[in-house]
Amino acid sequence: MKRIAVAGASGYAGGELLRLLLAHPEVEIGTLTAGESAGTPLGVHQPHLLPLADRVLEETSPETLAGHDVVFLALPHGRSAEVAAQLGDDTLVIDCGADHRLSDQAAWVRWYGGEHAGSWPYGLPELPGARDALRGTRRVAVPGCYPTVATLALFPALAAGLVAPDVVVTAVSGTSGAGKSPKPHLHGAEVMGALSAYKVGGAHRHTPEMVQNLSGAAGVPVTVSFTPVLAPLPRGILATCTAPLTGDGTGIREAYEKAYADEPFIALLPEGSWPTTAATLGANTAQVQVTVDPDAQRLVAVAAIDNLTKGTAGGAVQSMNLALGLPETMGLPLTGVAP
Amino acid sequence: MKRIAVAGASGYAGGELLRLLLAHPEVEIGTLTAGESAGTPLGVHQPHLLPLADRVLEETSPETLAGHDVVFLALPHGRSAEVAAQLGDDTLVIDCGADHRLSDQAAWVRWYGGEHAGSWPYGLPELPGARDALRGTRRVAVPGCYPTVATLALFPALAAGLVAPDVVVTAVSGTSGAGKSPKPHLHGAEVMGALSAYKVGGAHRHTPEMVQNLSGAAGVPVTVSFTPVLAPLPRGILATCTAPLTGDGTGIREAYEKAYADEPFIALLPEGSWPTTAATLGANTAQVQVTVDPDAQRLVAVAAIDNLTKGTAGGAVQSMNLALGLPETMGLPLTGVAP
Amino acid sequence: MKRIAVAGASGYAGGELLRLLLAHPEVEIGTLTAGESAGTPLGVHQPHLLPLADRVLEETSPETLAGHDVVFLALPHGRSAEVAAQLGDDTLVIDCGADHRLSDQAAWVRWYGGEHAGSWPYGLPELPGARDALRGTRRVAVPGCYPTVATLALFPALAAGLVAPDVVVTAVSGTSGAGKSPKPHLHGAEVMGALSAYKVGGAHRHTPEMVQNLSGAAGVPVTVSFTPVLAPLPRGILATCTAPLTGDGTGIREAYEKAYADEPFIALLPEGSWPTTAATLGANTAQVQVTVDPDAQRLVAVAAIDNLTKGTAGGAVQSMNLALGLPETMGLPLTGVAP
Amino acid sequence: MKRIAVAGASGYAGGELLRLLLAHPEVEIGTLTAGESAGTPLGVHQPHLLPLADRVLEETSPETLAGHDVVFLALPHGRSAEVAAQLGDDTLVIDCGADHRLSDQAAWVRWYGGEHAGSWPYGLPELPGARDALRGTRRVAVPGCYPTVATLALFPALAAGLVAPDVVVTAVSGTSGAGKSPKPHLHGAEVMGALSAYKVGGAHRHTPEMVQNLSGAAGVPVTVSFTPVLAPLPRGILATCTAPLTGDGTGIREAYEKAYADEPFIALLPEGSWPTTAATLGANTAQVQVTVDPDAQRLVAVAAIDNLTKGTAGGAVQSMNLALGLPETMGLPLTGVAP
Repeated sequence: MKRIAVAGASGYAGGELLRLLLAHPEVEIGTLTAGESAGTPLGVHQPHLLPLADRVLEETSPETLAGHDVVFLALPHGRSAEVAAQLGDDTLVIDCGADHRLSDQAAWVRWYGGEHAGSWPYGLPELPGARDALRGTRRVAVPGCYPTVATLALFPALAAGLVAPDVVVTAVSGTSGAGKSPKPHLHGAEVMGALSAYKVGGAHRHTPEMVQNLSGAAGVPVTVSFTPVLAPLPRGILATCTAPLTGDGTGIREAYEKAYADEPFIALLPEGSWPTTAATLGANTAQVQVTVDPDAQRLVAVAAIDNLTKGTAGGAVQSMNLALGLPETMGLPLTGVAP
Repeated sequence: MKRIAVAGASGYAGGELLRLLLAHPEVEIGTLTAGESAGTPLGVHQPHLLPLADRVLEETSPETLAGHDVVFLALPHGRSAEVAAQLGDDTLVIDCGADHRLSDQAAWVRWYGGEHAGSWPYGLPELPGARDALRGTRRVAVPGCYPTVATLALFPALAAGLVAPDVVVTAVSGTSGAGKSPKPHLHGAEVMGALSAYKVGGAHRHTPEMVQNLSGAAGVPVTVSFTPVLAPLPRGILATCTAPLTGDGTGIREAYEKAYADEPFIALLPEGSWPTTAATLGANTAQVQVTVDPDAQRLVAVAAIDNLTKGTAGGAVQSMNLALGLPETMGLPLTGVAP
Repeated sequence: MKRIAVAGASGYAGGELLRLLLAHPEVEIGTLTAGESAGTPLGVHQPHLLPLADRVLEETSPETLAGHDVVFLALPHGRSAEVAAQLGDDTLVIDCGADHRLSDQAAWVRWYGGEHAGSWPYGLPELPGARDALRGTRRVAVPGCYPTVATLALFPALAAGLVAPDVVVTAVSGTSGAGKSPKPHLHGAEVMGALSAYKVGGAHRHTPEMVQNLSGAAGVPVTVSFTPVLAPLPRGILATCTAPLTGDGTGIREAYEKAYADEPFIALLPEGSWPTTAATLGANTAQVQVTVDPDAQRLVAVAAIDNLTKGTAGGAVQSMNLALGLPETMGLPLTGVAP
Repeated sequence: MKRIAVAGASGYAGGELLRLLLAHPEVEIGTLTAGESAGTPLGVHQPHLLPLADRVLEETSPETLAGHDVVFLALPHGRSAEVAAQLGDDTLVIDCGADHRLSDQAAWVRWYGGEHAGSWPYGLPELPGARDALRGTRRVAVPGCYPTVATLALFPALAAGLVAPDVVVTAVSGTSGAGKSPKPHLHGAEVMGALSAYKVGGAHRHTPEMVQNLSGAAGVPVTVSFTPVLAPLPRGILATCTAPLTGDGTGIREAYEKAYADEPFIALLPEGSWPTTAATLGANTAQVQVTVDPDAQRLVAVAAIDNLTKGTAGGAVQSMNLALGLPETMGLPLTGVAP
């Protein structure tokens, strides 16, 4: 049994990590930490985690996080790098924040500012090359939710050279991706019944991460036009992605079939079926579909995930399994909660 | 490993049964049947059940259901009694429909009509006496979703004689409880943004089942005024229940603590906390809280469940565990999917 | 043309007042005030009020509110009494807050605390006697949203002596009734998909107002057991109300027909139809239905309103019309926005 | 007073037409017709239209529709052309269906099949040239909801030559746009909590209408890659649209300001604000915003409407006003119902 700690256990990512880890047969849950909520029982913040209701949250510090085999960091960006730097090299540290995702220092400085903490193996095992880097590692950078879904939708086509490196991504998301802090634009009465775009014009910090992933897959620099949209549901992201065809569209289905044939969490849907986030609720799965628009001469790919599961905590546990040498699917739900 | 069959696998109850059974370590999933959908793959109807996507649905018949250790019936009322009658006595038959819930023949005739199939051990283990009847049984009547939540909210007070046998129940439900058949009043654009009462004035068929459960607990006939309300969410029922105090309210908390102290799926919340359906999504749990209204001299109890899990399929699997002699909590989620 | 001011124009009640007043042919909109938002344009806070987008919010003070024929106060309780005290007797002051609703000083002190500002004519014209008091008045206390809907559901039966004065009310509400300030339990991801009860056990401040209204109608003290429930929609309240029959139920339909025959905003539905909040969205209407539960020997009445329209701002404008001698329905929508 | 008839009064478009026409000072509502629902009162189908609750629906036929100044057709495609052909040339016929939208016969045949009924003046007054064609006309083709919002988002940039004629549109829609007929994928429990794309790859029939509008504005053929997405809300469409810049982005804001300076229903938002459908609920307004993505060298424009108001019935009434020589804004709400 591996002993794990979760820093930031009172938030949405922390709660989802604990939901998944409670069902994992090879871990035992150790220290749980929080910021302002330190000293209070977890049940106040995560009433759905019944078996942990009486656990008291501790301060987030190197001392409280010491002595665990695995430490998950679900902290604001900047903070996780700071904490991680104080954890031992033999501890598996899995950062659900942004601090170690970008390999390009200039991109980090432009999008986040401050010192670049460097990059860690990137926790999207389905991306070519990623799985090898994750096996046995002691450091994992968990991808952002939008880059996860957009990358899964697009990389097979880019890797196969079937589309031009100029992609447009519109991703519609439930509101939990924006976190648990109450804010006017996330107020219940405001979000129910509302669709709204935000950080339009390439202003979302997940854009450079998509550029990094897709450029890596394509082997050439990829331009990404990304627009996020908020929709009235708690969880789920649906990404609609398009790029100009380089050829006549031949080979697209085959490229996706090849990319996902052995991927346990990716459901390339039967032709004619299209992804729905509802099928992925609480699951570590992604639904993917692709087609060609013959008039626009474009590939259109759509992918759906649960932003908190495959898009954050599930992806983190999947990477943990690889890092620890456990079966990659261990403890991770392949079924969604529907309807 | 027990081999199970699910009749009615394309519906909401059937889908939830399969979601839970896929995670159960002591069962293997055998035949899946359906009505009109026989001959089609399950993935068309339940896209969230990825591991079973290619399973082809068979006709519902004694022949297709034969040869299993356990048969779950998720069929329209009337139909399940008919099918059950043709299954062997050594098969564990778990009826998620209404056919075997009511012990009073006259009540059956009044509320459902047609011949009374008789009653089976009632699958609400938390109800006094129920667990004993379930152990080793080969027939289980799974409770209705509303009776489950109302009974859990009220029986401890009635059993202890702390309230008069005259209860008022308003239960607000997500729309999956009404089933998967498209109907005008369940159309998406109609239910989103709408609250509506239905079958008002004691007209809902779950009323006699509440009367049966609560009268049994109280030891005297209990009058139940029940009003169901539809709200815009897929899953979840919140029941608010009230009854006049017989005394000064002393002993209420103790009665609930005693009733639920050893119940693994029932969370009697800390005083001051109130149930939310969100904490039970996909879990086999119920949240319960109780207080006294000093002005109205009434007990007010509130309970929340997921209508498809604890209210149907989870309760069914819990009863299966008891019937098979397995640990009662085996394979059943204690954590909800939140937010 | 009457010149009106709205104090608290950046909140939900203020926004709804302005939406209705913009469509009113006999008013012109003067000063708009706010607290922290003073100095900012209304369009930032109420983007749906396009014609007023550039209006700059002023401070809430006797000076800014002076010189208007009508002043609407949409302020926190306590604050409106303070402001109202400084406005002239010839100004029509319409208080959407609680300060002037309760006539019983002891009830005020118990439920709100502090000094009792006294009571004003109560702005529920449908309540017997209320309309006369509103005609020509210069002070109006707008009812709370829950008391509005519960009173409309129950007073005809109580006034006719057809039920015992011991009522149970469960009212399910959208979240806008809780106001615009972001709070953890009103956070979008928390409320979507959730049903939760709050202030259970008679703890909601709207309870004494229901007691006042219903006792007045019944002519005897009425006991009210009130439980509010939050549901995932922005607007709408559905109240399910029940009380023991005093007789055999004869005369109930007639009592409601008589009470509502000439009421322009109340739709007593055809028998067999039940209220839905969706039909009242944005309308100043209430849908009402009533029946008898023959087993429980109870009357069950259900009413639906939009909490911000008939439940707050629409009721306020209806009272304004009466106070100013205008046609009662002037400027008020009789149609909802559905689906 | 103009006497109007509505064919298809039991559906969503018909209901919204009646909601708006009830508030219009220059019309009186005459015959209301339906298909299967003929013979039943409107209140059964449109409970929110209280003043028309007792109106009995008639059969849709030339005889029942005769004798009106204006006839609105809210009928399935194919059917409206058939009915329109039998109405007199002096009757103003406003077709909310698709039959008379496309001017290109080949496009009609490809996308809808059957005989092309010809094209009528196109009811999007904001489109250059459209207003002149609508003044005094006796035939109006009301645009589709998706073409309305996409055209408003994009035509100013295309007309000014500021972007290349190769646009990508993702439009997220509430479910009322899919109509009132119950269908499995529109079932309440399925749509709540779900985001799903449909008719992906340019397969939606609104695509050729966008091509027609945008090509007309650009003066050159425009390629449109259009993906519609269903989201869990009853009403509202948010379109995110992008196209490559032809220059350095200079002049974009000016082009939109010029296009919309005098448009009463179009709110070009202040820079930094982004459209939300919530602000347009029930209003005949569109919110529009535009920016440049400097990395992708693309324009990104976003627009929000209520699909049933500006996207269907409101647009129809706006065109009616123009056709009849009434003030264009008469009877049309400029304010949304929020929150």
